[in-house]
Amino acid sequence: MKEFLVGVDGGGSKTACLAVEWNGRAAGYAVGGPSNYHGIGAAAAGQVLRATIAQALASSGALPGEVGALCAGLAGCDRADDRATVESMLAPLACRRMPLVVNDARVALAGAFGSAPGVVVISGTGSIVMGQHGGRIERAGGWGPLLGDEGSGYDVGRRGAVAALRAYDGRGPGTLLVDLYRQYLEGDLDLLIPLVYRPITPADMGRLARLVGEAAGAKDPVALGILEASAGELALGVHAVARRLGLDRPAVVAVGGLFRELPALRQLVAARLGYSHLEWPRYAPVVGAVALAAGCCGYQPEAGVMDSWQRVVLEAGGWSQ
Amino acid sequence: MKEFLVGVDGGGSKTACLAVEWNGRAAGYAVGGPSNYHGIGAAAAGQVLRATIAQALASSGALPGEVGALCAGLAGCDRADDRATVESMLAPLACRRMPLVVNDARVALAGAFGSAPGVVVISGTGSIVMGQHGGRIERAGGWGPLLGDEGSGYDVGRRGAVAALRAYDGRGPGTLLVDLYRQYLEGDLDLLIPLVYRPITPADMGRLARLVGEAAGAKDPVALGILEASAGELALGVHAVARRLGLDRPAVVAVGGLFRELPALRQLVAARLGYSHLEWPRYAPVVGAVALAAGCCGYQPEAGVMDSWQRVVLEAGGWSQ
Repeated sequence: MKEFLVGVDGGGSKTACLAVEWNGRAAGYAVGGPSNYHGIGAAAAGQVLRATIAQALASSGALPGEVGALCAGLAGCDRADDRATVESMLAPLACRRMPLVVNDARVALAGAFGSAPGVVVISGTGSIVMGQHGGRIERAGGWGPLLGDEGSGYDVGRRGAVAALRAYDGRGPGTLLVDLYRQYLEGDLDLLIPLVYRPITPADMGRLARLVGEAAGAKDPVALGILEASAGELALGVHAVARRLGLDRPAVVAVGGLFRELPALRQLVAARLGYSHLEWPRYAPVVGAVALAAGCCGYQPEAGVMDSWQRVVLEAGGWSQ
Repeated sequence: MKEFLVGVDGGGSKTACLAVEWNGRAAGYAVGGPSNYHGIGAAAAGQVLRATIAQALASSGALPGEVGALCAGLAGCDRADDRATVESMLAPLACRRMPLVVNDARVALAGAFGSAPGVVVISGTGSIVMGQHGGRIERAGGWGPLLGDEGSGYDVGRRGAVAALRAYDGRGPGTLLVDLYRQYLEGDLDLLIPLVYRPITPADMGRLARLVGEAAGAKDPVALGILEASAGELALGVHAVARRLGLDRPAVVAVGGLFRELPALRQLVAARLGYSHLEWPRYAPVVGAVALAAGCCGYQPEAGVMDSWQRVVLEAGGWSQ
């Protein structure tokens, strides 16, 4: 009988799922909407997860009962009772072992470093820093849009809007952001109110971050200041995690959509850390999730095997770094 | 036939309504839940407004058709189409004149200064600065919890939680706030996540501000820093408004629940502005709203009349400054 392993990487903007046959060549990849636990609630997250997983399994050709293990890395899924809720919601998938539910940073870490020491700094819709060393895992940030997520797309987008409004009110220095937001809104800045309080999703707020990138590209000092501050926040998280792990100048990789969208941010974080640049992770987080699922079965996938999983993701266009 | 005037002051935590008989002694006062337009939506705001107004009218003894004019000052109600929406929702009240819907800061300004020049700095669940001079009105801030409201209860409460989490992560200096939030949560700080993303209302976030006040009272430097920064933000708004109005050292009054809850904040704002202290407004915002309603009928209430309205509010415990 065939045995399939399933990995999931679920964040504030999208959910990726990779299903692979262990010791075989069958594989399927699917992408669904956001599955951040606290953002959209457990029920909605469970629904997105089940649908996306079912799609990946169908495209891999897996039959019912052939799923050996499943690992889902979900943004905002941190506390034991959060994990238990999602684990029980994934039970209908009839996975042979209890599904493993972890924070999405955990699967990024597995994709970046396997079990070697290192730190991932993640900035997509949300942000978090997580590192590992000798079996220990430490994290900083990742407290969501209202309590933290400093340096995330949400944070940068919101700071841009706030800076534009401060300039508009005469409470802050003039900035190109006023014009960019006006163009974006096709009207005056008071249109930000219906836009933001409709309410806005974290992912939509994150989309405003590109206006900050655009203004920074034109050397607008306010926008550059926002990117500097955001890079400083992310670097602070790296320092906190490295210190707690006892790592001096750890290997650090950058993960997440905001680093792709704003290359200057990645460079600024590297500079803050005293590095010439930040590497991308070797494997996509969703591949890290499959590796953790393999671990649930006691398997240790070799690099050649993980390379083949990564190719499935790359060929599906699911990993553009 | 009797003629009643109705004033409403609606914010993120509560809605106050005062109905008074013009040239008479009948009066009624009622308090309802939040009616901030963008926070809870137009339909819910309209419902709270109609219910609270009906209660005040009933207790004043007004009969149907006896309402001459109504003025509602609502947090977040700024744009012409917002106002038109609420105005039409108040039409069932059968007010003889079209209801007047304005921002809640506008009625506070009327309560504080009548038509004399001056600036109100408001910090309750939200925050805004508004001033008037020679018929012109200018404002700064008031962009709501996600885009501004710097120095509001929401902002101070959120900054307190963020500072506690930064200390907890090792991303920021240690602070008494960690212990205070732990006591409040009756558990560890990760309980902030279910608390805040349940989701939290702006008013509930504002309630966390008292923990910052408590820590500041114990001379915690992080909490003192939050109050200093918040006072700086509010003073910045006063400067921006005064500059646009051409007012040099304007009369400034403090309005809103956060100033009552955190007396240190009021003192810090005064210090930033170079004043020995900030006065409270002469009349409650809801009395200012009634005065604006009177203006809709061409009436100009004298001080003795406004004093009698204010007494109704004070006797109902609706104004504790």
